[in-house]
Amino acid sequence: MNGIFISLEGPDGAGKTSVLEAMLPKLEKLNREIVSTREPGGNRVAEEIRQIILNPEHKEIDAKTELLLFVAARRLHLQSKIIPALEAGKMVIVDRFIDSSVAYQGFGRDLGVAAVSWLNQFATDGLKPDLTLYFDIDTDVALERIRKYRSNEMNRLDLEQAEMHQKVRKGYLEIVKKEPDRFVTIDASKPLENVITDSLAVITDRFFGLSK
Amino acid sequence: MNGIFISLEGPDGAGKTSVLEAMLPKLEKLNREIVSTREPGGNRVAEEIRQIILNPEHKEIDAKTELLLFVAARRLHLQSKIIPALEAGKMVIVDRFIDSSVAYQGFGRDLGVAAVSWLNQFATDGLKPDLTLYFDIDTDVALERIRKYRSNEMNRLDLEQAEMHQKVRKGYLEIVKKEPDRFVTIDASKPLENVITDSLAVITDRFFGLSK
Repeated sequence: MNGIFISLEGPDGAGKTSVLEAMLPKLEKLNREIVSTREPGGNRVAEEIRQIILNPEHKEIDAKTELLLFVAARRLHLQSKIIPALEAGKMVIVDRFIDSSVAYQGFGRDLGVAAVSWLNQFATDGLKPDLTLYFDIDTDVALERIRKYRSNEMNRLDLEQAEMHQKVRKGYLEIVKKEPDRFVTIDASKPLENVITDSLAVITDRFFGLSK
Repeated sequence: MNGIFISLEGPDGAGKTSVLEAMLPKLEKLNREIVSTREPGGNRVAEEIRQIILNPEHKEIDAKTELLLFVAARRLHLQSKIIPALEAGKMVIVDRFIDSSVAYQGFGRDLGVAAVSWLNQFATDGLKPDLTLYFDIDTDVALERIRKYRSNEMNRLDLEQAEMHQKVRKGYLEIVKKEPDRFVTIDASKPLENVITDSLAVITDRFFGLSK
């Protein structure tokens, strides 16, 4: 496959999605066709699976069942959208991929890193991004940002959220340590404008041989 | 869990389902509540997953995606129906369980025994039947039986089916060899009446301390 495969990772509130939106028009100027995507990636079967997971009436879906379904939807997204684009030589940028699974389900929900990694390896046939930008952010700063959008008070859910956020971040930091060649850490506590500039610089340096 | 967990396994055409139907009224006389079930086992979410798998328009579902979805449905069936019945001290008889997955997907569809076994272990938390009746039948005899119900000629599909049947049977024979304590092999090429008698004898001997 001639394409370039990039994933964006990080805990909630790190600003990944805003950064991706801001980067796209700039990357498109570099004469390479860009596909930006996130699960379920427009695949109708993956979308049906997602609806099953998200249905609030489906209380019998526990963490393991959810993981199996997520991973099935991931495979469909990969096969129907990511791989064809990579085969066509495009640059594919995904908002969350296998590392989210390991950080959120393996670390955050205690399903175990080995099990979650095994499942992802099985579902993706071992395909990994060429580059992963990890948006690192302190839990307090991230939750402050999330709260701004919701503008309500600290409650029990927030406390749970803080604990979960810390576990997920700790997970990410361990994952990043294991594959130093694939990951580049971006300091996501900086103002958004700087985070965008830093992210663009990493991608253009790595794949276009130029600084921003 | 005080219950007794039994699974029935074997290639298509071995007569498992007919045997189960014939055994049930006799087992019910033995003063133990019997639950007979097969996937998706009446669980609505498992049923939704099954609909996704069976939809003939969903051509993007390959063997691996199908396996992930089957295994998710298996977990839901296990948690919603099998485990509660076992906890209530009932005898649960399932028509196909984890070994079907290993035989059909691991051996028949070449996904690998290790991978399919791993996935089932993950989804069932390692719970296995106390006893598995393996209905062994020669491919020619089994296909002859299946054809009787369909009453049409041998065609290309039948040839494929014969090959698949042989792979699945070979798979079962290997699985059975690995766990001699859990499996009892039933000669399913005998007339149905004898197969029923043999199966009942194994269950009553093992769990009720009596022969038929």
